[in-house]
Amino acid sequence: MSVASSQVAIRFHPPSYDIRVENVPIPEITHPDDAIVKIHFSGLCGSDLHVYRGHEAVDKMQANFSVAHHTCGHEFIGQVVKLGSSFSVHSQRLPTLYANLKIGDKVVCPFTTSCGECQMCRSGFTCRCIQSKLFGSPALEGAQAQCIRVPNAGGTLFNLSDPDTWPLSTPKQVSDSSLLLLADILPTGIFAVIQALSHPKVLPVLAAAPWPLHDQASSDMLGLFPKENVPTFAIIGLGPVGVCATISLLDQLGKRKLPSGFRIVAVDPIESRRNKMRSIYSKVCDSEVQSREVFAVQSIEEAKEIVQTWTSGVGCSAVLEVVGNNSALALAYELVQPFGIISSVGVHGERPFPLTGGQLYDKNVSFDFGRCPVRSLFPMAFDLLIKRQDIFGGVGDESGLIDRIVGFDEAVEMYAAFDKGEVGKIVFDPWKKT
Amino acid sequence: MSVASSQVAIRFHPPSYDIRVENVPIPEITHPDDAIVKIHFSGLCGSDLHVYRGHEAVDKMQANFSVAHHTCGHEFIGQVVKLGSSFSVHSQRLPTLYANLKIGDKVVCPFTTSCGECQMCRSGFTCRCIQSKLFGSPALEGAQAQCIRVPNAGGTLFNLSDPDTWPLSTPKQVSDSSLLLLADILPTGIFAVIQALSHPKVLPVLAAAPWPLHDQASSDMLGLFPKENVPTFAIIGLGPVGVCATISLLDQLGKRKLPSGFRIVAVDPIESRRNKMRSIYSKVCDSEVQSREVFAVQSIEEAKEIVQTWTSGVGCSAVLEVVGNNSALALAYELVQPFGIISSVGVHGERPFPLTGGQLYDKNVSFDFGRCPVRSLFPMAFDLLIKRQDIFGGVGDESGLIDRIVGFDEAVEMYAAFDKGEVGKIVFDPWKKT
Repeated sequence: MSVASSQVAIRFHPPSYDIRVENVPIPEITHPDDAIVKIHFSGLCGSDLHVYRGHEAVDKMQANFSVAHHTCGHEFIGQVVKLGSSFSVHSQRLPTLYANLKIGDKVVCPFTTSCGECQMCRSGFTCRCIQSKLFGSPALEGAQAQCIRVPNAGGTLFNLSDPDTWPLSTPKQVSDSSLLLLADILPTGIFAVIQALSHPKVLPVLAAAPWPLHDQASSDMLGLFPKENVPTFAIIGLGPVGVCATISLLDQLGKRKLPSGFRIVAVDPIESRRNKMRSIYSKVCDSEVQSREVFAVQSIEEAKEIVQTWTSGVGCSAVLEVVGNNSALALAYELVQPFGIISSVGVHGERPFPLTGGQLYDKNVSFDFGRCPVRSLFPMAFDLLIKRQDIFGGVGDESGLIDRIVGFDEAVEMYAAFDKGEVGKIVFDPWKKT
Repeated sequence: MSVASSQVAIRFHPPSYDIRVENVPIPEITHPDDAIVKIHFSGLCGSDLHVYRGHEAVDKMQANFSVAHHTCGHEFIGQVVKLGSSFSVHSQRLPTLYANLKIGDKVVCPFTTSCGECQMCRSGFTCRCIQSKLFGSPALEGAQAQCIRVPNAGGTLFNLSDPDTWPLSTPKQVSDSSLLLLADILPTGIFAVIQALSHPKVLPVLAAAPWPLHDQASSDMLGLFPKENVPTFAIIGLGPVGVCATISLLDQLGKRKLPSGFRIVAVDPIESRRNKMRSIYSKVCDSEVQSREVFAVQSIEEAKEIVQTWTSGVGCSAVLEVVGNNSALALAYELVQPFGIISSVGVHGERPFPLTGGQLYDKNVSFDFGRCPVRSLFPMAFDLLIKRQDIFGGVGDESGLIDRIVGFDEAVEMYAAFDKGEVGKIVFDPWKKT
């Protein structure tokens, strides 16, 4: 497989709103653990907008980099075209988490690198690998290009060509553009959900038994639990990650067949996003509707009212914050009940936190912050991707997640439209000619 | 049982550091659900110092009260001397959570009231009862008095005289002054611990299996988990609540018999507190030492070093923040690992939060904030109280929790000494004459 010596890439130029399509060199192997991947599709993600808007949301842990202009993007699917020397000896050296990679393998990549060897990786918290770098940041060239260098490729890449990878369902059933969603937004949505549903303050309402002995509930305790305490969730932000979170939440709650049912309000100020969410829900609920399930898609003020009405002013059991700014955090605090949890997967910047310790104490709030460990969530995300190909698989459907697949010639326009919330999930085909 | 018409009480006068022992009227029943309790012992608690220092740490949810001087204290044990009319008909009306109260019953009381009937109470989150009031605040007269009015007494008080209450171990085995510890500090310490140990980011390291499928770990996954990832905890603040948290943590971890062992660093800047903690540990560890248990008591700078050394710079699995100020929160953030949790039971005021959303995102930090639901934790706290009477039962022992039992004539002096960290847990006997 041969590649040319230069390629086309979407590049960010500081300080803000300056995206240019430029010719840059094809990356080379610089370390024995590197791979070079020829990109089939790369995504435009909500957190690309943090860079685009000039916020400091690029990996602040690695802020000591002088080169601020860089190739954008951190979602890609592609094919391995070059491998460092480590991969010729991997059977001797490489640990359990390593993918078996060979030239020609189809791979999908988390938005951060992970070595697969350090304590964080082997504990499952791959996105906080001690060597972790974020693609599309000053620390590491991004994926909105034709080729990309992947450091720690064995620990980072997920090999879709390995026959052992998917013993039950082969990737051939799945559209390539939908596999791209495994790079970030689908696992990140799932991450927001499992943080909430596995939290010890949420488990009692799911079990309909009082804290703290909900897992050893006697019939007395089950009788004590108030019937009006129905599991109630808000999702703040209905961009592509918020939609993925909502689908995952419906899927997870549906599987549990809660006797009390559940309630979900999905919140976004933008009408087109709310309409997309409603279309998607109408498809999901056809196959999986639960008799006592309540689902609403609302603007911010409507959401406050409906939570007030549903819960008699108590608030939501959990709020999924999928935006990453202070007004979303403040709204999450307003909507959550005392002893509720806020699962925040939005990328937050360095502005002062909008809540005091006193406010958090007064409501017994729990917060889970941070980046999704995509590499560890691949199996779970892949299951949902297969199950909901009706939503993830198509392009441009009213009830599909991906809006359009475009060439780089539309990059400037698409960044601007996505920034304004005028389009949903955009996927770039770096080889598409106009 | 008769009571006089006036009583002696320790009163706070704003703005700060002004504590006076005064004569005030004996409280009367003002609502059918009230009880009047004659107090045997009342405690001086770390959060009384928030009031004493003039911080706004009194119940901010209920700040619209004009009377700012009030009787202090929120920990008491005593005997019911009067009951409102509800209690003559309770078998018809009162719900499951209600105590059966009659005149003469010995009772211990959580530091906040709870109705036992609302959604929050019946879900186990009693301290956020929709009618909840904090004793010893402008909203409700406190417990450093000879008698006290208890609103919602059925839902609030825990009846130590009810033979059904303790079927296995009777309260007669337990010293009265130690039972006072059930009002706040022992359950609050336990609360800090169970928030940490039940958190989905801590469960994997306790199971020695990688997130997120640690509860379905195959032998492959168990083999993958890094041996160097030993459960590691810090407790910040070794006042009486911090000591209770440490004892509870040792007890809980001891029961689990973790194959990897565990490490705990208990942190306080005050030497006398560290010495007390060491004495207590020497007693606890005699009976329950685990071969791979590591325990250290350290000053702040030493604690940073030892966590660095123990974990090769990764940080603690969980940090228990038992102080309630910004420097404790900032230290907790510094000591916690990425994907670690901070269980914060200190009472926080309205000062700006010392961390940005960006910092929380960058470390994937989870926070659990707030007040202990004491009423729900009574059974768990009672078990530990019985088990560790060697620590909780005595007064003035080197390795006992309670330092001194004093009369109100020493109140001014004791507040000042406790404020400076010069004494440990102080208990008032409101009937003691000098």
